[in-house]
Amino acid sequence: MTPGATLRELREHKPLIHQITNYVVMNETANATLAIGALPVMAHAVEEVEELASVARALVLNIGTLSGPWIEGMLLAGKAANGAGAPVVLDPVGAGATRLRTETARRILDEIHVAVLRANPAETAALAGIDAEIRGVESIGAAAEGAELAREAASRLGVVASVTGAVDHVSDGSRTLAIANGHPLLATITGSGCMSTAMTGCFLAVGDDDPARAAADALAAFGVAGEDAARDANGPGTFHAALYDALYNLEPEELDRRARIEDA
Amino acid sequence: MTPGATLRELREHKPLIHQITNYVVMNETANATLAIGALPVMAHAVEEVEELASVARALVLNIGTLSGPWIEGMLLAGKAANGAGAPVVLDPVGAGATRLRTETARRILDEIHVAVLRANPAETAALAGIDAEIRGVESIGAAAEGAELAREAASRLGVVASVTGAVDHVSDGSRTLAIANGHPLLATITGSGCMSTAMTGCFLAVGDDDPARAAADALAAFGVAGEDAARDANGPGTFHAALYDALYNLEPEELDRRARIEDA
Amino acid sequence: MTPGATLRELREHKPLIHQITNYVVMNETANATLAIGALPVMAHAVEEVEELASVARALVLNIGTLSGPWIEGMLLAGKAANGAGAPVVLDPVGAGATRLRTETARRILDEIHVAVLRANPAETAALAGIDAEIRGVESIGAAAEGAELAREAASRLGVVASVTGAVDHVSDGSRTLAIANGHPLLATITGSGCMSTAMTGCFLAVGDDDPARAAADALAAFGVAGEDAARDANGPGTFHAALYDALYNLEPEELDRRARIEDA
Repeated sequence: MTPGATLRELREHKPLIHQITNYVVMNETANATLAIGALPVMAHAVEEVEELASVARALVLNIGTLSGPWIEGMLLAGKAANGAGAPVVLDPVGAGATRLRTETARRILDEIHVAVLRANPAETAALAGIDAEIRGVESIGAAAEGAELAREAASRLGVVASVTGAVDHVSDGSRTLAIANGHPLLATITGSGCMSTAMTGCFLAVGDDDPARAAADALAAFGVAGEDAARDANGPGTFHAALYDALYNLEPEELDRRARIEDA
Repeated sequence: MTPGATLRELREHKPLIHQITNYVVMNETANATLAIGALPVMAHAVEEVEELASVARALVLNIGTLSGPWIEGMLLAGKAANGAGAPVVLDPVGAGATRLRTETARRILDEIHVAVLRANPAETAALAGIDAEIRGVESIGAAAEGAELAREAASRLGVVASVTGAVDHVSDGSRTLAIANGHPLLATITGSGCMSTAMTGCFLAVGDDDPARAAADALAAFGVAGEDAARDANGPGTFHAALYDALYNLEPEELDRRARIEDA
Repeated sequence: MTPGATLRELREHKPLIHQITNYVVMNETANATLAIGALPVMAHAVEEVEELASVARALVLNIGTLSGPWIEGMLLAGKAANGAGAPVVLDPVGAGATRLRTETARRILDEIHVAVLRANPAETAALAGIDAEIRGVESIGAAAEGAELAREAASRLGVVASVTGAVDHVSDGSRTLAIANGHPLLATITGSGCMSTAMTGCFLAVGDDDPARAAADALAAFGVAGEDAARDANGPGTFHAALYDALYNLEPEELDRRARIEDA
């Protein structure tokens, strides 16, 4: 399927995307999910997360503002999603920066079948334990290193690694894709990474037969929307508002025309 | 009083509206409260919610991202508001979808005098136990069914039922009003229902002698603002920003001219 | 250093600003921090706040939606920041309104070395215990009274008092500055006070040799951005979006030209 075909299917089925995410971006990821054409449900309490697994078509876990009860909710929700066959996406915000985050991300990767790990290079390297080999996260910028990082992380962690940066790289360990959409203004608003994770959940919900492809399509869609939003923006605030407009107005044909996904 | 007269009074008195609401929309309902001319205070801790009852003119409870401590805070706040004579509005987000939400909404309705229940048709039907009779929430769309649902829920639950949809219906069991303001873009942003609940709290704070009328006025005001915001919007993002502008700029006379409130 | 020179340094060093703030404004303060050129990290859990003290260049504490575990996190973070020599800014949202908030703010002031207390006149007066003497917070509006309040609070509490209003006043007890930038639309969005606190943290992170000056510079920068944002705004929603644009686009030279900071 092309990215546009997946987007068309997403809008037709309007899958319910269960998200346990951080306080900072909850509104943003819910609005991005609605704008692209899916339905968000935000719920974290241990009393209810398992029930949602029977209706949600994907689960997004994001460890951005972690605390004990939320970790418990994430683990329960993840196991229920695994049981129901719904794909799980993990955004390990801040892994490598504090022990709590590194250990929680590792625990989720250990106890839950994570379909896609959507992270930045530093978080990916920290979780895959390959900092040393790639000479520090600082140096990861060149396309070759990004592709190698994604491939290696995918192999070591047994996930699809979706590593975002100036150019994004998605790998399932054997095939690696480079996605060259996006705009520098995305880095000026908080939660753009978290939104790309939510978009990954949306695309996986309808394209989970090929999670690497769905993850790449999601990043292309989000990147093209970012390019559109940047056109008339005066800065991060107007860009942020225009980003939801762009996700909402993104046409499947336009996405197919502009998606820059290549083998890496 | 006309909707415009209530709006004028609201802006004159700037009532303090205590809100215990969900993480996703907290910023949105606070900003909508400010934009319409009232003052929000967001506080959920059991240690302080009762104190606010002596100064707040209305209490808004919203169960969107529930967990144990918040339920406790809501019950304490509700009882204190009842004791102080401040009207309570309940938004039972997701009632019917999980046991935790259904049971919490029922418990609040049991233990607290709720003036207005502002909900969508599915949530209303689930709480009033009338799913079967109206042949599933899917079928509630026709105006006649919306009016009947509101009337029946009001009677069974002993509240003013404010059921929002393409056309909104507000009933106290004997009188039922239909409100035909609004715009489809409202459904494209998260929290528009929650914002309409906050607006209900604002209008109730100054019009609590006739809660059904105040609830209808609030929905008309929010709907007219939605119509204004849609005019130059390019999608959900610019619509969202314009919605606060429209609430802020809404003139009482304009509201009276455009409010489409009729007996149903 | 001029305000512009501090802003230039801020953008060069991109200091990490650790923020434990309220649910309502978390997205807003993170985005304002990014827009001005620093890096936000939002983390509240006792398990990780101390670790961040070794990398963060300032700590912002905001008690807006308080509960037990968050208070514990704030105290731990504050002590760690003190130990690491990073300046701490406190925003005592709602102090004086409930016992929980007043007592928590006092406890933080007692147990932690707070560099700057950024608050409105009512909160400042409540914490400094000078309500009576200044004849109630209602009367604090005249510049002379604002300056006196800041000076007195600074002396009594041993902090730099940054008291915001139509005109802001910053005092370290001996020197008092008046800052006359800003726009009335700032009062129409929730979190503008909290954002000014976050800005204070950003400027302190690079100008902590003179915290009163840094606090005044931050308010001038935020105020000038507010003036810019108001230019084409139609109300609170478009103003809010334009505010991030204005912070992002604020030029050091422009800030120096327009900052209205005077001895009071």
